[in-house]
Amino acid sequence: MPDSAPSPRGVLAAALTPLTADLEPDLPRFVEHCRWLLGAGCDGLAPLGTTGEANSLSVEQRLAVIAALAEAGLAERAVVGTGSCALADAIRLSRDAITAGAAGVLTLPPFYYKDPTEDGLYAFFAALIEGVGDGRLRLYLYHFPRMSSVPIPATLIARLIEAFPGTVAGVKDSSGDQAHTEMLIREFPDLDIFAGSERFLLETLRAGGAGCISASVNVTAPLAAEVARRAPGAEADPLQAELTQLRLALEDFPMIAALKALKADFTGEAAWRHILPPLRGLDAAGSERLRAALEDLAGFERLRAA
Amino acid sequence: MPDSAPSPRGVLAAALTPLTADLEPDLPRFVEHCRWLLGAGCDGLAPLGTTGEANSLSVEQRLAVIAALAEAGLAERAVVGTGSCALADAIRLSRDAITAGAAGVLTLPPFYYKDPTEDGLYAFFAALIEGVGDGRLRLYLYHFPRMSSVPIPATLIARLIEAFPGTVAGVKDSSGDQAHTEMLIREFPDLDIFAGSERFLLETLRAGGAGCISASVNVTAPLAAEVARRAPGAEADPLQAELTQLRLALEDFPMIAALKALKADFTGEAAWRHILPPLRGLDAAGSERLRAALEDLAGFERLRAA
Repeated sequence: MPDSAPSPRGVLAAALTPLTADLEPDLPRFVEHCRWLLGAGCDGLAPLGTTGEANSLSVEQRLAVIAALAEAGLAERAVVGTGSCALADAIRLSRDAITAGAAGVLTLPPFYYKDPTEDGLYAFFAALIEGVGDGRLRLYLYHFPRMSSVPIPATLIARLIEAFPGTVAGVKDSSGDQAHTEMLIREFPDLDIFAGSERFLLETLRAGGAGCISASVNVTAPLAAEVARRAPGAEADPLQAELTQLRLALEDFPMIAALKALKADFTGEAAWRHILPPLRGLDAAGSERLRAALEDLAGFERLRAA
Repeated sequence: MPDSAPSPRGVLAAALTPLTADLEPDLPRFVEHCRWLLGAGCDGLAPLGTTGEANSLSVEQRLAVIAALAEAGLAERAVVGTGSCALADAIRLSRDAITAGAAGVLTLPPFYYKDPTEDGLYAFFAALIEGVGDGRLRLYLYHFPRMSSVPIPATLIARLIEAFPGTVAGVKDSSGDQAHTEMLIREFPDLDIFAGSERFLLETLRAGGAGCISASVNVTAPLAAEVARRAPGAEADPLQAELTQLRLALEDFPMIAALKALKADFTGEAAWRHILPPLRGLDAAGSERLRAALEDLAGFERLRAA
């Protein structure tokens, strides 16, 4: 069995999952995209998250994506999304990812029942860690209250660290609230804290955070990686400004559809537009508006050329 | 292949899923409970819904529950919960339930991505119906916005009926808003509209609705069934008042934990308290408060005796 892969830090791409016409994961295109992301300077991958439409995929489809990563020799570069409302599925996915050599797993709280107690969330994560039963497990908690409806409070993180030191490895903070991210960095100096958007990349790195795990890095990777390389120096600031402009422009669109439309555009591969319901692809007018919103921004050509 | 089972109307129990100590579905106890519900006068079963902790179970565990129902000869009495964020899983579960002879399937919208478009929800349900590809499919839409965060608007129901006449069979309206339920009854006279709580059973039946599909019927079945038998006559009113009192008292507690505690109490089987995280069982003090809140109500002894 391999040892734990090194903990990735810096810019991690919440990798898109390309799909075939019949909405199965397109594994060769997925691997090609992951290689592009790493070649563009990403420090790691965070496949099968919100951006990867993981909750729209069956467990079998998710296992196939993990297997494709491993076969391509990319598992150790990945923190794999293994969140599920079903404890048994979260255990199965996490065990599989770790066995495949993943650097870690990024796990949502169970998100169907609303307003769970902190004891209930603790019980879920404790049962997950014990159910995986593998000392190589590095668990990153996924705080994304706007989407999951279930926050991960700092008091819960503290309890989990105390019970499972060395296993709880970090947090992806997709709150969009940089003050919250910096609170986590201060409170949990032994954890790797990632902002959920490259908008906050430089601030997070300067505050001592690990970096960002972001959807839009699927297209902004070349620029985001450059910011991370130049951080924390002042020469990173103008690049961060360009990156922030791009991110904010993207936020005016349904994010995953917009990223798939841009990938289709950049690669010339229309298949990139396939998306699982309930998400819908951008229509022609939406794609036009997206292009118009981005192409005059200073950072855009840097992405196009990569 | 069997024909479609007759459409159940009246009181349907959103059956609890008893669990073993290692949190697997306890299939013999489940079948026994379903038989108790039908013996207590329920017109049908709605297993594997919110109350059945279905989203906390893996697809394999849910398939095992469906198989147990079918082996017990109870599938045709059941509208089986098949909701999943993953289209492939919703198709697999629905196809399995229909093949097993279920009267129908009760399906949540995909509930991870928030604020999906109506087009996106339409695409999901259309792909589900086409993916099952079985003329016996009777689809009940599950409207539970407080839990799922994703409402099923009347305009979506109308589009689905038009595209799939005869397949879309009904709605479970767990909005808790009786005006909304009665709007659905008026707007969709060909659908079976169920209230999500027996609190509204008599009103719903009098308005021309099909009945209720309710969590608390797991314990109130004897009384709820009596209300349905006497409806729409005035002699049902005092029984409905007793039933409403019980339901409202239960709503002061975490519903699923409270129902499992009561089943443990009534049957003397402590194993009924097992519950999947993030839900937690009632502690001793909570169980005491629950008992105290119920035992002086007029309808309580009727349940205890059944």
